[in-house]
Amino acid sequence: MSHISSHNHSFQSSAPCNNLGFLQKNNNLEEKISSFKERSSKDLLDNSDRDSRFRRTETDFSNLFARDLLPAKNGEEPTMQFLLEVVDILTNYVRKTFDRSTKVLDFHHPHQLLEGMEGFNLELSDQPESLEQILVDCRDTLKYGHNQYLSHLFFNQLSTGLDIIGLSGEWLTSTANTNMFTYEIAPVFVLMEQLTLKKMREIIGWPDGEGDGIFSPGGAISNMYSVMIARYKFFPEVKTKGMTAAPRLVLFTSEHVSLIQHSFPHENIPLTCLVCFTRGRVIPADLEAKVIDAKARGCVPMFVNATAGSTVYGAFDPIHEIADICEKYNMWLHVDGAWGGGLLMSRKHRHKLCGVERANSVTWNPHKMMGVPLQCSAILVRERGVLSGCNSMCAGYLFQPDKQYDVSYDTGDKAIQCGRHVDIFKFWLMWKAKGTIGFEQHIDKCLDLSHYLYTKIKGREGYQMVFDGEPQHTNVCFWYLPPGIRDMPDGQEKREKLHKVAPKIKALMMESGTTMVGYQPQGDKVNFFRMVISNPAATRSDIDFLTDEIERLGQDL
Amino acid sequence: MSHISSHNHSFQSSAPCNNLGFLQKNNNLEEKISSFKERSSKDLLDNSDRDSRFRRTETDFSNLFARDLLPAKNGEEPTMQFLLEVVDILTNYVRKTFDRSTKVLDFHHPHQLLEGMEGFNLELSDQPESLEQILVDCRDTLKYGHNQYLSHLFFNQLSTGLDIIGLSGEWLTSTANTNMFTYEIAPVFVLMEQLTLKKMREIIGWPDGEGDGIFSPGGAISNMYSVMIARYKFFPEVKTKGMTAAPRLVLFTSEHVSLIQHSFPHENIPLTCLVCFTRGRVIPADLEAKVIDAKARGCVPMFVNATAGSTVYGAFDPIHEIADICEKYNMWLHVDGAWGGGLLMSRKHRHKLCGVERANSVTWNPHKMMGVPLQCSAILVRERGVLSGCNSMCAGYLFQPDKQYDVSYDTGDKAIQCGRHVDIFKFWLMWKAKGTIGFEQHIDKCLDLSHYLYTKIKGREGYQMVFDGEPQHTNVCFWYLPPGIRDMPDGQEKREKLHKVAPKIKALMMESGTTMVGYQPQGDKVNFFRMVISNPAATRSDIDFLTDEIERLGQDL
Repeated sequence: MSHISSHNHSFQSSAPCNNLGFLQKNNNLEEKISSFKERSSKDLLDNSDRDSRFRRTETDFSNLFARDLLPAKNGEEPTMQFLLEVVDILTNYVRKTFDRSTKVLDFHHPHQLLEGMEGFNLELSDQPESLEQILVDCRDTLKYGHNQYLSHLFFNQLSTGLDIIGLSGEWLTSTANTNMFTYEIAPVFVLMEQLTLKKMREIIGWPDGEGDGIFSPGGAISNMYSVMIARYKFFPEVKTKGMTAAPRLVLFTSEHVSLIQHSFPHENIPLTCLVCFTRGRVIPADLEAKVIDAKARGCVPMFVNATAGSTVYGAFDPIHEIADICEKYNMWLHVDGAWGGGLLMSRKHRHKLCGVERANSVTWNPHKMMGVPLQCSAILVRERGVLSGCNSMCAGYLFQPDKQYDVSYDTGDKAIQCGRHVDIFKFWLMWKAKGTIGFEQHIDKCLDLSHYLYTKIKGREGYQMVFDGEPQHTNVCFWYLPPGIRDMPDGQEKREKLHKVAPKIKALMMESGTTMVGYQPQGDKVNFFRMVISNPAATRSDIDFLTDEIERLGQDL
Repeated sequence: MSHISSHNHSFQSSAPCNNLGFLQKNNNLEEKISSFKERSSKDLLDNSDRDSRFRRTETDFSNLFARDLLPAKNGEEPTMQFLLEVVDILTNYVRKTFDRSTKVLDFHHPHQLLEGMEGFNLELSDQPESLEQILVDCRDTLKYGHNQYLSHLFFNQLSTGLDIIGLSGEWLTSTANTNMFTYEIAPVFVLMEQLTLKKMREIIGWPDGEGDGIFSPGGAISNMYSVMIARYKFFPEVKTKGMTAAPRLVLFTSEHVSLIQHSFPHENIPLTCLVCFTRGRVIPADLEAKVIDAKARGCVPMFVNATAGSTVYGAFDPIHEIADICEKYNMWLHVDGAWGGGLLMSRKHRHKLCGVERANSVTWNPHKMMGVPLQCSAILVRERGVLSGCNSMCAGYLFQPDKQYDVSYDTGDKAIQCGRHVDIFKFWLMWKAKGTIGFEQHIDKCLDLSHYLYTKIKGREGYQMVFDGEPQHTNVCFWYLPPGIRDMPDGQEKREKLHKVAPKIKALMMESGTTMVGYQPQGDKVNFFRMVISNPAATRSDIDFLTDEIERLGQDL
């Protein structure tokens, strides 16, 4: 099924895989490290695994099909050749991604892709395709999926870039292909999750990192956990009797929070939006007035969401002042740090979340500001017991308490999901590889860059900031006024013209494929640019290029 | 930073990456296929990409750190070497996984792993670790995470095995590292999702595959979508006014459904459990009686969940009879086919879901019975418009309607999540590689195997089936009675002894590391084994081995 060329290139010649005898059986960390360091790298490389005998060969994939791969008989050789061919495609893609001469994007409209691009056919059929075609499909997917999302010139989204260690972690996770359900099926990942969550709670400032938590598929779901836990804490009988067991509950959040709004509609609870500053921060006095009003209407104020890093403005709510109100009125304080939580890793910037240690729960998405590949979101809870109390089904048919190991490590009873994807490993591996200080440097660098952009355009001709003062996060929100609009008198006509500028500039950017930045309207504000920086590959010259592009493309609008 | 050995093995010598000139620019599918077939495989291999110049070298990773990888200056060489070293570890692991002489598991207790195993230290620190240590961490993670989940002898969970095409798809997905938020950031994946969902709706039997749907992180969340959509359909004002805008709603489900129970507690709706057959199927007459009763109590019966493949028994509810009742009383019919949906791919077994085309919504998890790597779950909806109507936030700051392309392809307004992981690609790629018939063969093979087990142990001495009749899915539920218990008179003492048998046998299995099978109690039934088969690597001799092991280990209990 495959032919071996005369020049057998050795793909695998030197790497130890299973042979860990060189590491002393020794539980003392210091000694372990020193014994590890004493081994020369040569030992590691020469100590090759006898099983690591795989050699890359030229293989004819046109007559091979998925059914010829493992577990098929004699499937090992085609499987290895196929996987290495895939890796070849992927490593080439990685190299191109970081090549600064690569275009940010090569845009095709939906109908163009659907009609088929140079043989790229998305339709599914009854019969299998050859592995050769599958490899072509993989290349085409990357080609037409374009790599702007990873580019240093892509400023469109909160999560950007590609971390090589995180990528390796994802490759390993998918190879292990397990599930966070119980300790017995994912022992190492379950322990990594436990240790990492504890470390995050220590960084939040909860004594000894005590508390609980879990990784969820994203910020919206983490925030939903917080609402469920709060409701269970105050009205546990809701779990069995439904909402008739509780009075009318009121939740409070600011109006500039996307994630919490995404989660609240699924709760049958009236939602009160708070009045905000122009910079999107909750006004504590307004919060307290609304709490008093809710009580007067016979409702029970139960939950306040303080946002640490709002989606558009990157605003941080004043947590201490909100915590005072929560304590006074016995409400649950949740801090949505999906976007801003990463700043806790920075000694320079963590003061923006001052008071977070008073929260009852915190959402923190390492997949946003910390550069961890999507998905990686944590919900952290200060009080032990409420998370599993809220979600446990006492489902003996799922989780057996009579197993032979300590089942307190099983996480299934805490989760709203049954099968739960392993999101922890890539994050744990990045933390190992960068250290806490590596994340700090990443955060500081991104905030430095946004400060550079802010100081550059503040007061520059043609630019107008959306809110006054230094941005708290990497979000820099601004209008660009083309020369033809600059001198128009304020009024509806100018607003209408300005509203169209950002969409036009973005469309031109996408056509020329140079860079990409987001825009949106907000409240009574017409479309403005929102620049966000979370990619460590970005530089000051990229920022300069962006503003040059905006000015170039916007010149004649 | 890295030294090049004298014998530069060529890792990358022959694969085209970006050069797609050999494919004619031609939108006619037939012609495309024939033009593709005319190219010899040699063309493909010789047409090498000039950029594909990467060569594997012996690299000293002990002085390299994450900061030396891309986007670092001169980071390309260490990045490529590091990724290939990781791939080396992973491909070795894949080979071992499929090696039938590998032990199913090598169990360590939590405290053993936490104390550190031969230098494997899970703790996170402030300072970075060298890439050499990171590679050791990767090996250790796989070593101590053991590969039982993938083994042909692992029958513990609904999702098992490792599909090589699915694995390749996951590797590519994490390399692309994008997000399903909008078409502009994931054009190809968004279209693949759309086409695949349409294909699934066609297979369900909805005319022309019309309708809507989305991939979610798992069955519990897909089921939650169905409840939200149903509520929105009947009482759209709930979205803005909260649950006070609706009467008291009642949902109906059988008691043997894990996923739907997981999702319902988050809804503030009274939940009525239905009486079940001993085989866990809803009794339609009982459903109708309970609907009439709910109406008499002034409530509004709104939603019925029919389970297609329950978690423990693998039971399929009688969908047609339930659909009749739903039509009569104007209720939403949801089919939870998280586990059983895969049977729709089999002409032999799809009759078990007869009537599914009458459902308003269907949950179907390709990550269970179809062997797609976790996570991959779809919620499919028959009526167009309700999914986005229910979930859209009209959040102009997230989704801009004035973009330059057809924004109807953006999926963000349908999802309860903001960032959404790309779960589609691995599934799409597997479908391409296997064809519909490949999935059918997989399903048929697994059901044949469970039929083999059932006929083998039915009536065999020492075995007792938990329910009468042939299993509908691959779930085979049985007690094993050791000789010392077999002849005891029925009664409490026998029950208590039997209750301890399955946990003991499983603990012994885990100690000897030979195989793994799940058990649980259910209702008034003491612990029994639940055998499930979803791994295409399993064979009849594996089934024989399992029963031999149960008998060997249970002999003296």
